[in-house]
Amino acid sequence: MTERTRVAIIGAGPAGLLLSHLLGRQGIESIVIDQRSREQIETTIRAGILEQGTVEILSETGASDRVHTVGRRHEGIELAFAGEHHRIDFAATAGRAVWLYPQHEALKDLIAARLAAGQDLRFEVTAERVEDAESDRPRLIARDASGAPVEIEADWIVGADGSRSVARSSVSGQRAGYFREYPFAWFGILCEAPPSAEELIYSNSAEGFALISQRSPEVQRMYFQCDPEADPDALSEAELWETLQARVPGTTLKEGRIFQRDILRFRSFVAHELRRGRVVLVGDAAHTVPPTGAKGMNLAVADVVLLSEALRSALADGDDALVDAYPETALQRIWKAQHFSWWMTSMLHLQPEASDFDRLRQLGELRTVVESEAGRTYLAEAYTGWPMPGIEAVLGR
Amino acid sequence: MTERTRVAIIGAGPAGLLLSHLLGRQGIESIVIDQRSREQIETTIRAGILEQGTVEILSETGASDRVHTVGRRHEGIELAFAGEHHRIDFAATAGRAVWLYPQHEALKDLIAARLAAGQDLRFEVTAERVEDAESDRPRLIARDASGAPVEIEADWIVGADGSRSVARSSVSGQRAGYFREYPFAWFGILCEAPPSAEELIYSNSAEGFALISQRSPEVQRMYFQCDPEADPDALSEAELWETLQARVPGTTLKEGRIFQRDILRFRSFVAHELRRGRVVLVGDAAHTVPPTGAKGMNLAVADVVLLSEALRSALADGDDALVDAYPETALQRIWKAQHFSWWMTSMLHLQPEASDFDRLRQLGELRTVVESEAGRTYLAEAYTGWPMPGIEAVLGR
Repeated sequence: MTERTRVAIIGAGPAGLLLSHLLGRQGIESIVIDQRSREQIETTIRAGILEQGTVEILSETGASDRVHTVGRRHEGIELAFAGEHHRIDFAATAGRAVWLYPQHEALKDLIAARLAAGQDLRFEVTAERVEDAESDRPRLIARDASGAPVEIEADWIVGADGSRSVARSSVSGQRAGYFREYPFAWFGILCEAPPSAEELIYSNSAEGFALISQRSPEVQRMYFQCDPEADPDALSEAELWETLQARVPGTTLKEGRIFQRDILRFRSFVAHELRRGRVVLVGDAAHTVPPTGAKGMNLAVADVVLLSEALRSALADGDDALVDAYPETALQRIWKAQHFSWWMTSMLHLQPEASDFDRLRQLGELRTVVESEAGRTYLAEAYTGWPMPGIEAVLGR
Repeated sequence: MTERTRVAIIGAGPAGLLLSHLLGRQGIESIVIDQRSREQIETTIRAGILEQGTVEILSETGASDRVHTVGRRHEGIELAFAGEHHRIDFAATAGRAVWLYPQHEALKDLIAARLAAGQDLRFEVTAERVEDAESDRPRLIARDASGAPVEIEADWIVGADGSRSVARSSVSGQRAGYFREYPFAWFGILCEAPPSAEELIYSNSAEGFALISQRSPEVQRMYFQCDPEADPDALSEAELWETLQARVPGTTLKEGRIFQRDILRFRSFVAHELRRGRVVLVGDAAHTVPPTGAKGMNLAVADVVLLSEALRSALADGDDALVDAYPETALQRIWKAQHFSWWMTSMLHLQPEASDFDRLRQLGELRTVVESEAGRTYLAEAYTGWPMPGIEAVLGR
């Protein structure tokens, strides 16, 4: 049996759920499917540095109050290098801030909001393929937890299904995109400890990069640059603390039981095409950034802000101009964010192939940035998020 | 016969002549030698984008009035990419400007000023080596045009003798330094034509980089990125104009007879040591930058501003603190300038090994810079010159 909806959305991550939420506010119904269970989605601990625009979207559209009560506003970060600590003051430079609010908390809020609104949100339904992308009745072919086929015909299908996107095959080809690999990865830990510092510390040290991040008052997230082939279980807890501490010489880390350890691969990717006919890609299905710039989820939100208004205009007004413009408009921000993520990564990590010249140039760059108000502002603007096109329309400003 | 002076300076380029000039204003005598003839020095056409601080030093110390009458103030540059032109307005962002004043014109001024002051300035005297660098009576061993030996004993010897410095052997070892090579060069032309645009155009094009620069109202200097092994005589004039024009699609170049063509190699270098005992390096003897950031001569001037006050303090007050601090203080600016030169080079050139990802990231970077006032200011501050430490002391402010 073929079901009908206006917009079929593959993926109940931040991009898919937020799109369904924003469309719902405009009276446009959608169906969201995801192959994971609700519990899986809500309990996988994920990073979360939210740009100011992302927070405005979540809170002003009623998707999340908790971003202000559970989340914490951060008005700066510290850049550490050559034994010095330099604060990048977001408020004083860019006049903006970021919020530390883990992604899985935002997902809980979005799922609750969707279900409370009586919307069609289906877990453990696995997309298999998209058919008839170039017709005006594209179809999403999937299978539910029992193995029964699901077929949804829609006006538009949106691939919000992450870096292993099924929808991407129909739009751009599964592996058709612009790639960049990095010769290192992050070793991440979660530990039971209070924060070691007020704000996040990004440290360029002679031993390699480290990021002292946070999750909550009781749980901290820390990362250090490692070989992509490193074995996460090869180091003892004492060795992990020693490794981290050596990379932030100016700060005494507060240690605690380490209860998760993982290796994060670094990869940059942009799909060759973001749209084919009535099928559109958003978020990680369209692009992947290395984590250094904290841009992943924020870029997904920026895509969705653009696309929700574009689909509203197409479905309610019969005007396809915005949806036609979506790929080019979205790509402007995507490539800026790719650059920022590459820049933060390059400036802060020890490149395995770096010469002494490269290393000293890197310190010269860090010094140029922190010594200049313009340099600090340039970094702060990117970190807290450039103006999000379309946000005024979505927030009715 | 051994002669005596306070400061023996090897090299009558901008660094050596300016140092002698600034020391002379403090009543400190020096001898400057150079292996070239006065005519060679004054007629070799060289680039010249002078930072605001460089111009202040030249004009306020009486070294050059012509920088204001012959030189031309430029309050911005154009960045061209992806078919767009974007002005970086130096005055509106950094509140500063640069002057287009060819280096050989500045050299004429400095030579005239030195000779008018009755200072000891010797052409066609070739330095052979420095002896007893670590004693308080170091000696400069040279040979004049007739082949007769010259020996000068001094309190201090300064190597201002360019990238093939003889003095460097005594300080840091001839080849001991931090290097970076680039996989491309610039093809430069001089032509008889009026300027093609009001300001300099730095163009990132799919065909490669081009810089539309100027020398005077009648003579223009233009460059385009080429293979380092390119033969400067392989292209006809028509082919040269075609190559240049293809790289600045938004501007119609004003053509004219091409009367000089050359290949400029790209190289970054910083000597491991800037001082040993009583021998100190300044300018190209200490460091080389690729030409993209126009930092070469300006960095030499910044070295000399620092060193002249340091030598004055050592010789007149018997206080070595500033000369002891010279290497570290100078290196802060040198590494910032190395970064800026690398950055402008990387952002604007087509890297032979670049992937499509790299190319699109580069355009994303250019867009991030030009769309942000902070980004434009960050670039403008570097181009027009960061504050020069020591300039207040030298100018008696």
